Order: sequence, then C-alpha cells, then structure tokens
Amino acid sequence: MIEGVIEIEIMEKNEISILGAGLIGSLLSIYLKKRGCDVSVYEKRADNRKVGYKEEGRSINMALSDRGWKALEKIGMTEKVAALTIPMYGRRIHDEHGNTSFLPYGKDKQAIYSISRGKFNQLLVEEAENKGVKIFFDHKCESVDLRTNEISFTVPETGTEKIHSKVIIGSDGAYSSLRMAMQKQVRFNFRQEYISHGYKELSIPATAEGEFAMDPNALHIWPRGMFMLIALPNPDKSFTCTLFLPFEGAKVCFDKINDKRDVEGIFKNYFDDAYQLMPNLGEEFFTNPTSALINVECYPWVLKQAMLIGDASHAMVPFYGQGMNCGFEDCFILDSLIEKLGTNAWELVFAKFQKMRKPDTDAISKLAMENFVEMRDATADPKFLLRKKIEAKLHSLFPNEWIPLYTMVTFSDMPYSEAYTQGKLQEAIMDKVMANPLITQNWDKLDYEDIVNQMDAAKAV
Amino acid sequence: MIEGVIEIEIMEKNEISILGAGLIGSLLSIYLKKRGCDVSVYEKRADNRKVGYKEEGRSINMALSDRGWKALEKIGMTEKVAALTIPMYGRRIHDEHGNTSFLPYGKDKQAIYSISRGKFNQLLVEEAENKGVKIFFDHKCESVDLRTNEISFTVPETGTEKIHSKVIIGSDGAYSSLRMAMQKQVRFNFRQEYISHGYKELSIPATAEGEFAMDPNALHIWPRGMFMLIALPNPDKSFTCTLFLPFEGAKVCFDKINDKRDVEGIFKNYFDDAYQLMPNLGEEFFTNPTSALINVECYPWVLKQAMLIGDASHAMVPFYGQGMNCGFEDCFILDSLIEKLGTNAWELVFAKFQKMRKPDTDAISKLAMENFVEMRDATADPKFLLRKKIEAKLHSLFPNEWIPLYTMVTFSDMPYSEAYTQGKLQEAIMDKVMANPLITQNWDKLDYEDIVNQMDAAKAV
Repeated sequence: MIEGVIEIEIMEKNEISILGAGLIGSLLSIYLKKRGCDVSVYEKRADNRKVGYKEEGRSINMALSDRGWKALEKIGMTEKVAALTIPMYGRRIHDEHGNTSFLPYGKDKQAIYSISRGKFNQLLVEEAENKGVKIFFDHKCESVDLRTNEISFTVPETGTEKIHSKVIIGSDGAYSSLRMAMQKQVRFNFRQEYISHGYKELSIPATAEGEFAMDPNALHIWPRGMFMLIALPNPDKSFTCTLFLPFEGAKVCFDKINDKRDVEGIFKNYFDDAYQLMPNLGEEFFTNPTSALINVECYPWVLKQAMLIGDASHAMVPFYGQGMNCGFEDCFILDSLIEKLGTNAWELVFAKFQKMRKPDTDAISKLAMENFVEMRDATADPKFLLRKKIEAKLHSLFPNEWIPLYTMVTFSDMPYSEAYTQGKLQEAIMDKVMANPLITQNWDKLDYEDIVNQMDAAKAV
Repeated sequence: MIEGVIEIEIMEKNEISILGAGLIGSLLSIYLKKRGCDVSVYEKRADNRKVGYKEEGRSINMALSDRGWKALEKIGMTEKVAALTIPMYGRRIHDEHGNTSFLPYGKDKQAIYSISRGKFNQLLVEEAENKGVKIFFDHKCESVDLRTNEISFTVPETGTEKIHSKVIIGSDGAYSSLRMAMQKQVRFNFRQEYISHGYKELSIPATAEGEFAMDPNALHIWPRGMFMLIALPNPDKSFTCTLFLPFEGAKVCFDKINDKRDVEGIFKNYFDDAYQLMPNLGEEFFTNPTSALINVECYPWVLKQAMLIGDASHAMVPFYGQGMNCGFEDCFILDSLIEKLGTNAWELVFAKFQKMRKPDTDAISKLAMENFVEMRDATADPKFLLRKKIEAKLHSLFPNEWIPLYTMVTFSDMPYSEAYTQGKLQEAIMDKVMANPLITQNWDKLDYEDIVNQMDAAKAV
C-alpha cells in the first residue's frame, strides 16, 4: 500500500497560492478550499476590516447578474449576498430637460443587482477565512520566478518575504504581477489599451427625509453623446454616480474642468436634474481621483502550474457590467474542470480551462467596448428605444428563437462567444427592419414570424 | 552676459543616456554627438570586439535599403558601410525541382544590400567611440524610475550601478527595459504579439573552389506556402540562410523535427537544390536556437524627457526588410527636428517626433506582416510574377504616377503611411486587372494609360 501512502501525502501537500484577495481571488479560494486544497491568498492591500474600506476611485458599485449568481449559488452564498443588493429592473434614461423613460433589461422580474464592491469583497473574505483559507494582507507581490514558482513579497513589518508554491493562480487584477512575469516569457501575446475616456465617482445622498432621491430599482443613465453620467442605488438610500468624460480634446472633458464653477456649469447644462440632488458635487469632484479605463487581453494564461484568472487575464471596460460576473464564471468553470479531472492534474486543468474560456472572454471584452457607444449615445435615440421594443416583442412571441443580446449576456449562461455570434446575426436583421421609413408608425404590425425566419436563413449560410 | 554664461553651462550639461548599443543606439549616438550633446550609451552585452560576435539566433543578415543609406549618408558613413555589403538586385525564386526565376526588386541598378548584423554593429560602435561617445558595455538595465530619471544597472564587476540622466533614450530593442517602465504608467497603450512561425539560422558555405555556391546578387527564396527558406550572400562567399516554419500544428513544423533524419527528409523533399549545398545542415539545425518573431506596438513613446526609438517602440516582423531601415530613419527624422528646434527643447522635440512618426511605423509594421504571406506563398504563383511584370511596366511608362509599393517602401523616402495608402489603391486596381481571364495571354496589350487613370479617379473619391 506504499502507493496509497504517497498519494495521501501528495493530497495533503496540495498547496495553492492565490495572488489577490479581490472579488475573484476570494471567491476562487472558497471553491478551491471546498475541493480540499490548502489555499493561501496574498493581498497587497491592508485588511479593510481593520483600516476601513477605500480603494481609490474603484468603489464603483457592481451589477451582479445571472452568471455571478450561479457561481455564488454553487458555494451556498446566494442568501448572504442577496442581503447586500438592490435589484435594478431596467435603465432609467434622463434627457436634458429632466424627463425620464424606463427601458426594461428583460422581461417579468429579470434584474441586475447593485452591490457595493467594498462590502461584497469583505463578505467573501470572511467566508473564505471561515472555511479555513489563509489570507495574508499587506503582502505586495514584487516578482514571480516562473522557473521555480518562487514569489517575492514586500511586507511592511518584515521587509521581504519569499514563498514557494507548486501552484500559483494570479487573480491580481488588470495590473497583475503574475502576468508581468509571464509577459517576459517567449511567445506570450499581450495587449493593454486605454480608452479615450476616464471616470470619476460622485454621489447622490438620501433625501432629508431619509429616502431615495430617485427611483431605486433602476440603473440611471444621462446619455449625452460623447459622455455620460450613471447612478446605481445603495442600501443606505444614496446613489453612487459615475461620470464618464473624455480626458482631453473635446468640448466637455476632464482637462477643461479646473474649478467648481466649471463643474457646476457642466452639470447645470447637461445633468440639471441630477445636479439638484448633488449637494457635495463641487467637493467630491476635486477630492475623488480621475481614473483611466483599461482593456487587457493576453494568451496563454498558463505557464505549467501558474495561471491567470479574472481581470489579470481579461480586464474589460465596465460598460456591459460583466467584468465581475465573467470572473465569477471563470471560477465556476475552473471548478467544473477540477470536479471532472481532480486536484492532481493542474497542468491539464489549466490547459483545458484557457483553451475553452479564451473565445468567451474575447467576446465579452468586445461587447463591453461596443456597449459604451450604446450607453452614452444610442440610449438617447427614440429609434433605439423602438428597436429594443421590437426585440422585446420578438422575444415574447418566440422566446427560444429570438433572445435579445443583452438577455443572452446578462440573464443566461450561454457562452459569451455564442451570444456574440447570435447577437451579430440579430443586429444585421434588425438593421434592415429599422431601415423601413415607416417603422415608427407600423412597428406593431410587422410580420414578426418572417423576421425570426430570416435568422434561420442567415444561420444556414 | 550672465544669461550667456548660463546658457553655455546648460549646453555643457546636455547629457543624454542611450540604452542599447545595437544598430539604432550606436547610430543615434553619433547623430547626437554631432549635435554637441554629451552622449553615454549603456549596453547589456559584452564588447564584441573583445569576446567575439555572437547573438544567439539573431545574426540574420540585414538588408540595407534607401532609408538606411540616407541616414548613413548624413553622418558621412556611406563608404565605410558600403565596403561591408553585397548588392541584391532581386529575388531569385527556387521551385521544388530546383528551377529558379529572377524577380527584380526595382529597375536598372536598384538593389538592397546584404550586410552582417555583427560586423555592421561593430563598425557603428567604433565610429561612435571615435567621435567621443562613451559606451559602457556589460551594463544590464534593471529598472528605470521615470519620476526621477534614475537608471539601475547590473554590472558584472561592481554589482549594481545607478545613474541619473536628464534625457534618456531607449533604443534597447523589442524587449526594452525603458518600455517596461513606461508600461506601468497610466494610459500607456501596448501590444506584443508573436506570430505562429519561428525561425532558425543555417548556412551555405563557399564551394571547394572558394566561390559562391549560387548567384550572389540576389535574395534567394524557396517559397513553400506555409513555410519558406531564404538565403542572403556574405562577403566571405557563404550564404546565411533562414528557415521559417510554424512552431507547431502543421505538416511541416519545428515541433515535428526531432532528429537529423527528420531535417534531411524535409530538406530533400522541399529544398533539394539548397540541401545539396548544405553539408552542415544536420549539426547546425540542432546547435542553432529556434527563435520567435514578435511584433510590438505602443503609444505614447515619450514620458517627459524619456523616449523610445527603433524596435523599442515598434518591433516588426522581418519580412519587408525594413526593421533596421525604419530605425535608422527614426534617427534621421529625430535629428532633423533637433536641427530645427535645438538641443534644449527635448520635451518638444520628442512630442513632435512621436506624433509625426507613429502613423508611419504603424504602416510599415502592417506591411511587414502582410509581406510574409507574399514571400512564402505568392512568390511561387505564376500569376504573382505576371502581376509584378505588369506593375513594372506601368512604372516604366508612368514613372511618377505608378510606383510599385515595394519601390515606394524600399527605394524612396516617402512616408511609410503614404506608401501604404497608395499601395492599397494600386492593389485594388491590380486585383481588377488580374481578374481578366485572358490576362496571361494579353497582358502586354492592356490599356496601361487607362489603368493609371483609374488611380486618379480612385484618389479623387
């Protein structure tokens, strides 16, 4: 039975080091712990339970949707997380005169859920620790030696610390240290791209009566063509707002805003109904940082027993609300592979994971980029609202044949790449439908069956 | 005259540090020295005059063409360099039966010039030192602090050395350390992409009689669709050959070559005429490394008084033979800006340089990628040879109106981006011309004036 003994030893030594205790790293650690691994997580930030939560310019609320929920459900966290969320059933569009219109995200009670990044992260970290995951805060990864799987950290108390780990997973975000080490390897393809816009967090507090100042069950958008403001509700009845502007070179851009008068001028002019609800606008604008928006793509994600996951391998712009949901789905899919192949075949699991997952993360990254134009520009167009109405009707008449792209991405777990392909087919058909000059008058009398059949014909090609 | 004194002091302190004493760094140092700067160059390799020249897998011969010659001429080096070169007037295409055909690069005596990277580099380093440039070999740049412009080096004798430099220029190649520091700056766009093919250097020695084994005044190509072999002449009457194969996943690829029998099998099968001239093939194949081919694009190239140049900002694949020529043209253009704006306005000079130059380096990078398909595949197609013939005739009839793309890139100093745009126009017209089913028979009787007029019409759009 010597072989059996050796096997148990290997099982006991199944040590995994995760870089980053953000949303993805914490969730992943819970999954791996449940699979019996010995999991350590190294996080460069201090323990926010001790120092209070602040992540400069990154506390944007998250929008949790089906893929995220599915990953939480598998580890039994649905209820704990639900307590922190507020459902948003659609977009509430604000025009320049303060008139609003409501655009449902899906049908019936389909919603995406607003949740504070800080509180959510704290919940996941606590769950991980309760399950026996070791989390080391204040451990800033300085370098990873991929020949030896040795990781060097800077630690405030002790200076430099080095550890060796058989398996390393980098969930250390868009500026991943593990990816930086991989980038120096031959044949590592990598791309980082910043868009021309930056963002700034602002807020709308609760009213004097302690109530929400606007409809809480919607994601509010003030689309203004080249720029926009959005707002998501919080349980304390405030809203977290995010202003997206070009950095420079436009009529309205961050570079041209130098003092409170500039800020107030722009808000009065373009977002007056929001402005009336923002007593701290002037201070917040100059206290909060202006942050950049990055898109990262790379491949491979794996070098032997080291792997990137979440934003570390595919940071996307936030305009489809899928960054976190996609990262959670990464964890779910990785866990399904471990379920099948065990915890002693990391190279195989990782190799299968990257091959299977890459086309999907590429697809959602592209969609996130494209959705920026839709959010800031198209949502203000009556034709766009009509288009959404026609698509909703198609979906209600033919629920399995015609599923709006947003629904496939947000309210299903269909692979992102399939959603992308089918979405492009539908888009081409809808372009033709919308080109009809009488569409505004006769949209309700269209031959809807014929529209759906066009898709079958297009697919057959 | 106190102002005058201060100015002289600043002039005297015009210290510039260049990272990398490769072809571009050495040439640039000569340019800057001529402008009166105090130039130090830091090179990670040992002085090859002391240790003998070897750059693992990188000693591919270079093909010097007009843009490169123009940059050498401005510093009076034409003759010294010419002594090291062999003119190649066209491509000599070898088919699978050993038959060859000759495809001129241009008209009359237009040629590109084969030169050994090692010998060329050594000449430029010596010229730089003779002009008073300080070159520090064995200085491996470990990091650059862009806030303070402090550079840390590892030096074999002394350990770590730190220097501070007002102006830093990174001509440290595709894996640039300066670029690595810039990459961590917000809003630095960066992309590194490896192609599916790798390469291996091989050789054809001089014959027993001490003569060239093939026509020395041509670039030899054995195009085989998904792969190819090329050969460039050397003054010692040998040829330097380069084999380009996919790394894996193809019928013929590096991964499937495990022993001498495999190598010889492939060469006998696909390159038999070359094989007969390669007595050391079996040894060389397993002694020489297999190298990868990278394309790098980034922007900005500049952070205040630090700038990237050459491959550090735009490494391209080698298939247009323009990597070095483009880097030399970088130096020429930068020098022209210094000529106009002086040596005390580095931020302005650098800002103008990157803005002016980026569209051109993007264009030649794209052309280099596209030319790979032409070299390994199209050159074997009789229709392609005919196309080249028709274009040559158009050029001889209308020398200013129709200039083949290869000629614009190789035998002119027209901005690469203009060459690219005009090339694409011509390509579309030639596609139509070649679609004529009788073209092989009646190519000589075409209405050539009408073809050229199509271009005017297309440009007017």
